[in-house]
Amino acid sequence: MYRIVLDVMGGDLAPSSTLKGAKLALQKFPQLHLYLVGKESVLKDFKDEERVSLYYTDEVVGMDESPKDALKKKKNASIFKGLELLKNGEAQAFVSAGNSGAIVAGAIFILGRLEGVRRPAIATLIPSLKQPFVLIDAGANVDSKPFDLFQFGLMGSIFLEKVEKRKKPKIALLSIGEEMGKGNILVKKAHQFFINSNLNYVGNIESRDIFRGDVDVVVCDGFIGNICLKLSEGLAEVILEMLKSEVKNSFVYLLGMKLAEGAIKNFKKKADWREHGGAPLLGVKGNVIIAHGRSDAIAIENAIKVAINFIKFNPIEQLEKAIIETLKIEEES
Amino acid sequence: MYRIVLDVMGGDLAPSSTLKGAKLALQKFPQLHLYLVGKESVLKDFKDEERVSLYYTDEVVGMDESPKDALKKKKNASIFKGLELLKNGEAQAFVSAGNSGAIVAGAIFILGRLEGVRRPAIATLIPSLKQPFVLIDAGANVDSKPFDLFQFGLMGSIFLEKVEKRKKPKIALLSIGEEMGKGNILVKKAHQFFINSNLNYVGNIESRDIFRGDVDVVVCDGFIGNICLKLSEGLAEVILEMLKSEVKNSFVYLLGMKLAEGAIKNFKKKADWREHGGAPLLGVKGNVIIAHGRSDAIAIENAIKVAINFIKFNPIEQLEKAIIETLKIEEES
Repeated sequence: MYRIVLDVMGGDLAPSSTLKGAKLALQKFPQLHLYLVGKESVLKDFKDEERVSLYYTDEVVGMDESPKDALKKKKNASIFKGLELLKNGEAQAFVSAGNSGAIVAGAIFILGRLEGVRRPAIATLIPSLKQPFVLIDAGANVDSKPFDLFQFGLMGSIFLEKVEKRKKPKIALLSIGEEMGKGNILVKKAHQFFINSNLNYVGNIESRDIFRGDVDVVVCDGFIGNICLKLSEGLAEVILEMLKSEVKNSFVYLLGMKLAEGAIKNFKKKADWREHGGAPLLGVKGNVIIAHGRSDAIAIENAIKVAINFIKFNPIEQLEKAIIETLKIEEES
Repeated sequence: MYRIVLDVMGGDLAPSSTLKGAKLALQKFPQLHLYLVGKESVLKDFKDEERVSLYYTDEVVGMDESPKDALKKKKNASIFKGLELLKNGEAQAFVSAGNSGAIVAGAIFILGRLEGVRRPAIATLIPSLKQPFVLIDAGANVDSKPFDLFQFGLMGSIFLEKVEKRKKPKIALLSIGEEMGKGNILVKKAHQFFINSNLNYVGNIESRDIFRGDVDVVVCDGFIGNICLKLSEGLAEVILEMLKSEVKNSFVYLLGMKLAEGAIKNFKKKADWREHGGAPLLGVKGNVIIAHGRSDAIAIENAIKVAINFIKFNPIEQLEKAIIETLKIEEES
């Protein structure tokens, strides 16, 4: 059995998205046992469900609430209750589409960091012209240090190898200009750690090129990673919106777009972050999967699938070993 | 007459793009006098042209050359020769699609910075669902300080007011999260300068929302600005590429896209950076317009148009005054 906690209260569309997502996942994965954490009134439909355990709490962390305040004042919030089920060994993975800052803070506080990890990071899979690539850190940290970026690259690489079964993932630093070592102080210093390592480091990548899919792990500070992620989402939406409003001006255009609708649907499916489910928080002592705040039922189902793969392929052990190895590189530098 | 230098050697498509662009601009703007700087062999068609002065040089800064090295070793390169025509008063504005790092370094070295400006910045106009907004700094600097960001906001605002005739431009800091003051250390500290000023500062903007066009000036460090700019370009290209390859799979889709072609063309025109021409380098003693490295003839023509507007509306005087005012805010903080 895969024993997975789902924070039923987390996400812009929760609880309807999480409840539906839970049902879909239970149908799809017969070896799944779900631990649902949320308000009793919300969970009543699951009372007699097999393969489900219910944990009631009335506290919820708001999507824009300060993570620090939440950790202090809402100890019983669904996020923190759920993480405790992971901590005490009842469950093997945790999934939430809630306040990602609170998930990160809660995971660090309740589960703790892996030995040697300074900053856990969010690894988000992003669609490209070829296979999806990992953007790490997608927003767990701001103001990272050069050595943090090096650890992000390592963790992203192990995640792809162990969980996504990608061979020898290529790691690059997100920067301006392709020449090795070009960039700001942070990138220049991180570059030094990478070239002194055994990782499959290929130098810089420009933001223009990340969607081509030639690089597997794109490493950056969480401030920049989060900006890139949201910029991509915003731009994709605006492009489709602009196309739609252009099409309105003529019957022939409308007819044309109607005919091409299937192509646009296929494209949307390929480009859809929902298909890739949740993003793991790497570097903490437990399998923590952060789903997109705007997750619908399908996205929740896919996040649960990611959690199952984490339990199945258990990358944490290898992560811990590899991270300890990096500390030697740091000492030598 | 508008006396404008064009660096004929600068840009991925130069000199054919710059030569054609020069011809288009001379036709369109009867009051334009162009100072063309480049190799003699390249400029031969313009020998008998009215409203054109020719300056020959055999040295060219490569698109990926180190700006520092170029400034040291290639004093006669077209970029630096051109900037000298501005410095000695022969011309009133300078346009180049060449190595932007070399243009920035050359402008600072040859023209000098306005009094009180620590870091000149590139202000790029970007299309949105409403009117275009300014992204500043789009890549003149990496590792900016909080006070630099404050000056970027001020300069971007004056540019929009004086040259683009936009009233009371709304200024926002690019960050993660909308709440005022949320972000990394740089943004948090820059926020303090903005709230203590008289500028029309509206707080943070998330990257997801910049294309909605509700904010006029989006302020960020040049490393992040350059990454955002190139990410947007790369993603727009990839989306159209993915759509095209989807369409190939079916005759009906192909027919549909054919019918909707006009709409897609209109959309492309609206979203096209070429239509907005060049980006001014703000904070130096002179009108310096940096065109996109991939500029074609139309983009060059539009960059010349931007240069004409700079001469016509002369924002530099107001910039200098306003910048000196900011130094009081810095002292008080």
